Amino acid sequence: MYANTMGSKDVKLLNFWVSPFGKRVEWALKLKGVEYEYIEEDICNKSNLLLELNPVHKKVPVLVHGNKAIAESFVILEYIDETWKQYPLMPHDPYERAHARFWATSAQQKLGKEGSWTALVKSGEEKEKALNTASEVLDKLEEEIKGKKFFGGDNIGYLDIALGWISYIIPIWEEVGSIQIIDRLKLPAINEWMTNFLNHPVVKDSLPPRDKALDYYHLSVKKHTPN
Amino acid sequence: MYANTMGSKDVKLLNFWVSPFGKRVEWALKLKGVEYEYIEEDICNKSNLLLELNPVHKKVPVLVHGNKAIAESFVILEYIDETWKQYPLMPHDPYERAHARFWATSAQQKLGKEGSWTALVKSGEEKEKALNTASEVLDKLEEEIKGKKFFGGDNIGYLDIALGWISYIIPIWEEVGSIQIIDRLKLPAINEWMTNFLNHPVVKDSLPPRDKALDYYHLSVKKHTPN
Repeated sequence: MYANTMGSKDVKLLNFWVSPFGKRVEWALKLKGVEYEYIEEDICNKSNLLLELNPVHKKVPVLVHGNKAIAESFVILEYIDETWKQYPLMPHDPYERAHARFWATSAQQKLGKEGSWTALVKSGEEKEKALNTASEVLDKLEEEIKGKKFFGGDNIGYLDIALGWISYIIPIWEEVGSIQIIDRLKLPAINEWMTNFLNHPVVKDSLPPRDKALDYYHLSVKKHTPN
Repeated sequence: MYANTMGSKDVKLLNFWVSPFGKRVEWALKLKGVEYEYIEEDICNKSNLLLELNPVHKKVPVLVHGNKAIAESFVILEYIDETWKQYPLMPHDPYERAHARFWATSAQQKLGKEGSWTALVKSGEEKEKALNTASEVLDKLEEEIKGKKFFGGDNIGYLDIALGWISYIIPIWEEVGSIQIIDRLKLPAINEWMTNFLNHPVVKDSLPPRDKALDYYHLSVKKHTPN
């Protein structure tokens, strides 16, 4: 049903250059060699197309495949993996799949939103608590990745793509907020994974320009910090 | 690998009687005819077992299958569906699967946390905004369910299980908060789905006692309402 669409441009991705969620979709499509048209969205002035395709969240990324639109990065990743079978992202075993899904969403929540991001925009006790939350999750991920090149084993898989934001967004946030989230001495395996991940050909050439990303997050943090 | 575990009690569910998340897992196991041991958790005084099995979130539900523990209700649902193949919960088509996954998480976020729950514990403008958020999602779900008995079609599927909380929790919250979330006249199809869902044999006999649930949420709302 889908094989004949491969390589054609009936795949479109609505994205925003610095979105860590959108980056997941880019990586998945590139790993699978699916050609697509990239449509940059102005998130300060959202297009009618975006509002029409994702009326519930009004957010990027949105994947358009033929006449079907799919939103939410984790939903899109599963769709991509089920639609284009080459280079499977998800492990085969149900428990390993559950494990990957668990860490994908849990790290986004605990290490991202409630952890690092809250540490960036809050102060005092709230900031401390957020840094601890992030730290606890990183300690657990350190155990997960020990002895492996990627969370997916020898190759980048679903969980690497899901957690990929850690490798380049957290260092940017650390600089923006003058905070330390990843203690490199205490997390050698995470540190090594970050290097492996960032050096992967699909990842290396896809990252947003660091200076531009720094400017973006400086402004973003300012906007979200209570006066 | 898993077939020989069916019917044995090496499946355990750590749950809390009124948890809408845990209810999803109960329904899935029952629909598939998987026997399991139910372990009631005191969420005010969490057991060492829970803390050990779900150290990241420290929350029910947790499914234990042999020596493997799985947390987070949507992750558990996918695991159950991939492990016990009888009575498939997920649709077969990748786009329909994406659609089900999208609505499962989006309704929990927009209709649950940001919508109905916020409407219960906040006041003024925040309450109004939350009621509108819930309303918008319900309007969209009304379109989704029109002309169908269940979101899964003729039978209860993944999305019905994911959204099942709407059918019995929202009416309780409406009573607790003296608010109207589901406008029954404007949402006849949702209303009919709620009746169909609540009358399903697996659901009917599994619901928490209404009076006890009302007491629980009265206290819970009080605890979460700013003074």
